[in-house]
Amino acid sequence: MTARIDLNSDLGEGYGAWKMGDDSAMLNIVSSANVACGFHAGDPATILETLRAAAERGVAIGAHVSYPDRVGFGRRRMDVAPAELTADVIYQIGALQGMCRAAGTRVSYVKPHGALYNTIAHDAGQGAAVIAAIRAVDPALVLMGLAGAPILAQARAAGLDTVAEAFADRAYTAGGELVSRREPGAVLHDPGLIAQRMLRLATEGVIEAQDGSALRLRADSICVHGDSPGAVAIAAAVRDALRDNGVLIAPFTEGGRENAS
Amino acid sequence: MTARIDLNSDLGEGYGAWKMGDDSAMLNIVSSANVACGFHAGDPATILETLRAAAERGVAIGAHVSYPDRVGFGRRRMDVAPAELTADVIYQIGALQGMCRAAGTRVSYVKPHGALYNTIAHDAGQGAAVIAAIRAVDPALVLMGLAGAPILAQARAAGLDTVAEAFADRAYTAGGELVSRREPGAVLHDPGLIAQRMLRLATEGVIEAQDGSALRLRADSICVHGDSPGAVAIAAAVRDALRDNGVLIAPFTEGGRENAS
Amino acid sequence: MTARIDLNSDLGEGYGAWKMGDDSAMLNIVSSANVACGFHAGDPATILETLRAAAERGVAIGAHVSYPDRVGFGRRRMDVAPAELTADVIYQIGALQGMCRAAGTRVSYVKPHGALYNTIAHDAGQGAAVIAAIRAVDPALVLMGLAGAPILAQARAAGLDTVAEAFADRAYTAGGELVSRREPGAVLHDPGLIAQRMLRLATEGVIEAQDGSALRLRADSICVHGDSPGAVAIAAAVRDALRDNGVLIAPFTEGGRENAS
Amino acid sequence: MTARIDLNSDLGEGYGAWKMGDDSAMLNIVSSANVACGFHAGDPATILETLRAAAERGVAIGAHVSYPDRVGFGRRRMDVAPAELTADVIYQIGALQGMCRAAGTRVSYVKPHGALYNTIAHDAGQGAAVIAAIRAVDPALVLMGLAGAPILAQARAAGLDTVAEAFADRAYTAGGELVSRREPGAVLHDPGLIAQRMLRLATEGVIEAQDGSALRLRADSICVHGDSPGAVAIAAAVRDALRDNGVLIAPFTEGGRENAS
Repeated sequence: MTARIDLNSDLGEGYGAWKMGDDSAMLNIVSSANVACGFHAGDPATILETLRAAAERGVAIGAHVSYPDRVGFGRRRMDVAPAELTADVIYQIGALQGMCRAAGTRVSYVKPHGALYNTIAHDAGQGAAVIAAIRAVDPALVLMGLAGAPILAQARAAGLDTVAEAFADRAYTAGGELVSRREPGAVLHDPGLIAQRMLRLATEGVIEAQDGSALRLRADSICVHGDSPGAVAIAAAVRDALRDNGVLIAPFTEGGRENAS
Repeated sequence: MTARIDLNSDLGEGYGAWKMGDDSAMLNIVSSANVACGFHAGDPATILETLRAAAERGVAIGAHVSYPDRVGFGRRRMDVAPAELTADVIYQIGALQGMCRAAGTRVSYVKPHGALYNTIAHDAGQGAAVIAAIRAVDPALVLMGLAGAPILAQARAAGLDTVAEAFADRAYTAGGELVSRREPGAVLHDPGLIAQRMLRLATEGVIEAQDGSALRLRADSICVHGDSPGAVAIAAAVRDALRDNGVLIAPFTEGGRENAS
Repeated sequence: MTARIDLNSDLGEGYGAWKMGDDSAMLNIVSSANVACGFHAGDPATILETLRAAAERGVAIGAHVSYPDRVGFGRRRMDVAPAELTADVIYQIGALQGMCRAAGTRVSYVKPHGALYNTIAHDAGQGAAVIAAIRAVDPALVLMGLAGAPILAQARAAGLDTVAEAFADRAYTAGGELVSRREPGAVLHDPGLIAQRMLRLATEGVIEAQDGSALRLRADSICVHGDSPGAVAIAAAVRDALRDNGVLIAPFTEGGRENAS
Repeated sequence: MTARIDLNSDLGEGYGAWKMGDDSAMLNIVSSANVACGFHAGDPATILETLRAAAERGVAIGAHVSYPDRVGFGRRRMDVAPAELTADVIYQIGALQGMCRAAGTRVSYVKPHGALYNTIAHDAGQGAAVIAAIRAVDPALVLMGLAGAPILAQARAAGLDTVAEAFADRAYTAGGELVSRREPGAVLHDPGLIAQRMLRLATEGVIEAQDGSALRLRADSICVHGDSPGAVAIAAAVRDALRDNGVLIAPFTEGGRENAS
């Protein structure tokens, strides 16, 4: 049986005159694009351009929904009431769906961004608000979340399909959590090392934890970044290592999800 | 044959802690609701609440799309480039469609708001950008515009269905244009007079122009306002006069459009 | 010696077409106006109009600074980094100072709004960021905060003058804290009762706590609201009870601060 | 007598996570910095950092005020009512003044940005609104505008000092206007050519117009850009040509304004 995995990246994160990352380069690397929906980044014209480019290349689209905090780029925890959070997420998914229709593609999944991503990983209340939003718009949409985090089981219990993702450039604890960015060694920079780690993850389901132990981690997708030339080089190294070793890089929507039968 | 007409009003125009108008009262009067999409008014929670209330009453939903100018309430002309305007309108329609799905209803038509409404009435370039947006999202969506304005023919030539609307509380020139708000007598305030004018419009297709002449005006919908107690009283008077005289008040989506066969 | 106290209220909280509260009525009641600075409410034209009306009546001006969260009206806790919070507060104070110069008045004090107010009452880190901002713009500006909360001592230790405020329509615990809004009886509604409580506070320095005990509370200013007709009536009742019993209502800037010599 | 001229550039134009231009490089080239005030660009933390760096280098500060249009980067004409425009400009100047106090510097001048700059050059109504704002905050602030445009005489008639600026990388008509960007040759790209043109302007008060004629142009300041590596190279070439040929580069605030006695 051929090993396969999805590669995803955050795209469409410019805003008006401001650019961020090299979307063109990344669209030639990834199989899934988490596209900003306007709350942390992404004006309509930028979003539409990104979606058209993704559609041309057959890259799957995820709604990269966020807290309403453009100046903070969605990175700051906000105490948003559940009903407001649900409405915010519905609005963002809907907007991206409309733009996808105009671009000849569709939204396949939802990946919360930044502080919202981190919060729902463990906060069941805010998680429930996001799950309710997805179910209200389209229960067939898949939730992408942190591999091993409680939100994935919570979403499946609520009837959603889920995708578990690993981070290419992050160190893991032996317990399967991301090492905090405040600690030394939390972020990896060596493209060759990162590529080998992701190859092992895709083929063996194992990643070496910070203490040297072998951590079993089930991941359907690998998140790579494109916000600097160095990041693009890492993403390309991951893709090359996978491809050259016979791993199929394809959207999880074509099969291979954690909870697929 | 029974005379029939649509009554529409701008709703969902609160923003966060700020309220505007009496949506509950108006939803008991109108057959169609132009719901703000977030660019001039309307936060997601407010929009969703409005849509749910409209869905309960069987009121049809229009996307009330605007220039991106919340502090100016969409009332200020902006030189938005056509491609940006198209993307802005797609985004707003999509967002409202997503929220409609969550509320158990759907977007039936698009009514540009404020300065965008006035601009596209006569500016074919900005009009084309709006038409392109509607066609890109869903060509079955209907464009609501000013009765007699060039935008309606432009939209039909581009393949869209259209709805012509008259304004209950505005005076008309003999040539069929709205009297400018800067002129005395442009806005009418007497509920009884307004109701009689709208009854004649709905039953005879005629409205008395400012110079006393009888103006033939084909209107499928009448716009009434709800942003003050006086406005709600006018809207109720129009509804009562129509209903008591046998005019069916119903969404144009159920028939009766200018261009319906 | 004549008893004296300041009455303050949140004003200038409209935004563009949206209105909030009855600023005109409140400016005839209060001696100090906490004026929105644009981050939770207040567009420049609304702010300027409020400042001019306050200047005409000799009402003192406070900068009502907030987290950047207009759609949430500044009521949601946000994890803003200290350096960003300091810059945000400097910006808002500066903007209001500029508008005050245009209106012929000046900023006398700073009162954080909503979630920021509640956060700094006890969070020394965010409190230090606000204090740093005030000191950077003008160390002569006074910080208004919750009577009895640690932020006041923290600010004075950093060299700022402070003003302690009590809330007219809130119940207090025997320990001197506000009863949480989630508990029954947290918010008082009887104008006569509220007025008598505030009269006793102004003249005896005592307020009856929720358990019936007499709580000693040193307050230089009383916060009243103007966001509903009922609130304005309460504010007027407080003013009348104070005035009719010989208490001087005047800005604390003219003397009477907690830390004045 | 030594020739002297001011070099100015638009700085502080990042927004949150988004960067724009190389402020550090430009602050080593220019004598005056037009700093964004938050309406088209510039969040408080970015603005403060820019002001501190400018203050360290003795670079003079101008308030780069704009229409409220962040997503359009202030480049789109908006029909803002005069009273609203005046309030918007007062707010922005005040905010920057507050941040300057925190950074140990001060606002010396006001330069409208983008569409507002172009509009007031010839539109006396919007120009009057900007002039009124400057006078209301501080009549000693200088207005920087397009050399030869009516706004400069209008401002002086209203009692303001003015500074006339030329654009280093733009072609001029024989009549002294900028060649429209829609025409070929409107924007110059050759650093050597641009530097020689600016040297002649600074020493002879002459610039070669598009038709080859010698245009007399009185300019107190030259605008250079920093939004691309090529732009920074042009700015450096202009500085070097001026300096190497004995032209003093210094803020106009130290003398040398068009209307200085």
